Amino acid sequence: MFAPSTSFRLKERNALATITAALSLPEFQAGSVWLAGAGPGDPGLITALGLHAIAEADTILYDALANPALLRFAHPRAKLIYAGKRRGKASAAQSDISRTLVALARKGKRVLRLKGGDPFVFGRGAEEALALARASIPFRIVPGVTAGIGGLAYAGIPVTHRETNHVVTFITGHGADGNLPELDWQALSIASPTLVLYMALAHAEEIARKLIEAGRASNQPAAIISDATCDNQKVRVTTLASLGADARECTAPAILVVGENVKLRDGLDWLGSLSGRLLDPDPLKVEGFRRVS
Amino acid sequence: MFAPSTSFRLKERNALATITAALSLPEFQAGSVWLAGAGPGDPGLITALGLHAIAEADTILYDALANPALLRFAHPRAKLIYAGKRRGKASAAQSDISRTLVALARKGKRVLRLKGGDPFVFGRGAEEALALARASIPFRIVPGVTAGIGGLAYAGIPVTHRETNHVVTFITGHGADGNLPELDWQALSIASPTLVLYMALAHAEEIARKLIEAGRASNQPAAIISDATCDNQKVRVTTLASLGADARECTAPAILVVGENVKLRDGLDWLGSLSGRLLDPDPLKVEGFRRVS
Repeated sequence: MFAPSTSFRLKERNALATITAALSLPEFQAGSVWLAGAGPGDPGLITALGLHAIAEADTILYDALANPALLRFAHPRAKLIYAGKRRGKASAAQSDISRTLVALARKGKRVLRLKGGDPFVFGRGAEEALALARASIPFRIVPGVTAGIGGLAYAGIPVTHRETNHVVTFITGHGADGNLPELDWQALSIASPTLVLYMALAHAEEIARKLIEAGRASNQPAAIISDATCDNQKVRVTTLASLGADARECTAPAILVVGENVKLRDGLDWLGSLSGRLLDPDPLKVEGFRRVS
Repeated sequence: MFAPSTSFRLKERNALATITAALSLPEFQAGSVWLAGAGPGDPGLITALGLHAIAEADTILYDALANPALLRFAHPRAKLIYAGKRRGKASAAQSDISRTLVALARKGKRVLRLKGGDPFVFGRGAEEALALARASIPFRIVPGVTAGIGGLAYAGIPVTHRETNHVVTFITGHGADGNLPELDWQALSIASPTLVLYMALAHAEEIARKLIEAGRASNQPAAIISDATCDNQKVRVTTLASLGADARECTAPAILVVGENVKLRDGLDWLGSLSGRLLDPDPLKVEGFRRVS
């Protein structure tokens, strides 16, 4: 599945070289490491620079969350190393990953660390980059589309909208010990109408309880998006009161979102609409919307 | 400058078609609108799907913040319409943009609305999408890398890092009336160690004052990143106390960030390092960091 014919790869790689030249993308220097985000899942959401990195790398250490379909752009002789982790079960320890990046760069390789989403959003990318800095390895960061924004968009939920929020907050449900980090939920509840939670499925009930205790309405809309932007994306719209129970029926990886902007999905579920869902022209039930039609 | 020879475009467009097929990207249907993010500025940070949209569109309405170098991938006969706005000075009114999108789609055009960053992050993309839903125009959202994440990464500032923050908050400085929105700065200050502000240059002094009044240390690190990820990117590291004064010397578009993670730039300024800056291996001055070298 990940080994199409060499000629097929060659055509694609030549095409990428043309794009790379047109965009004046930087050269992937031997002996350096690029930490790149692969986007939330849909292979079309990787950046041009990310694709270029895959094509030029000698070695690629990739995550569970990086779409393997992207690896077909790799050089046929590139070494592909799975370095994924899921829900705290480290299939590769963080220190091992950093050590491998340093060792390969010192051998003069072009080393790509390909992570799901964006490398600096709750992905331990900063730790890996600091390890490179300590070892004096040249590196580059290639940002990616994060699931908390792009994943929501594929569910028809805009992360911001003037009528609902001027503030959006991203929270990880996964602290250093694997538990929910100690946070001031009272302040979070007041500060930010929209809360987007990463790696929080296992703690959904606790989070919902804390937010309700902090004064959020128990019928506030919430949504759980599993496998966001992938072909098997699943969206479950619920309320804060039911978030915990619903989360038990959802699978990781998932993004949770709490806030009035979840209602906009009724009007903006473009993916559902492409399959025949009728969209609500006034999902927030705001009067006086100017009509352009 | 934006009109290279047709043969040049043809080569690039053929290359893109190869990439599009390899990634199984969706067809841009006639009579539909795609709202796409162009990323924060560096043309390499557009997504593969975004490039595909540019290549296939009949009409492109583009923003001031979308890099015009990307338009060379457009069809030679595509109509390119500048619909940019800067700091409230509407060169095209929002309702006019929505009306134009609807009218062109009804004529059977493939209409691309190309916005800087991500279309759903403080970009009024949701308003435009709702206008399309009201007019029963099929549409698709193509997320992009947002400047608040990708722009910070190009300044060597990770938007999250375990040692500094489990929470990050994005705030717009630009409410519906052009003024700073009414927000609970006390709650924001407590809730989120890292605050990222969009379109807030003109309100930097007021924001800093409110945060200091809310209890944030006046010597807390902050940074202003102008023209993030572009060749002319400028980064000014400062403190909360000096943020207002420094902001007056910076140019829009700019992203502001307040939080301890700004310190990480001393260790992670990879762009500076490529030009000879020596990185600090322990920018947070945390003892006991495990060394991998």
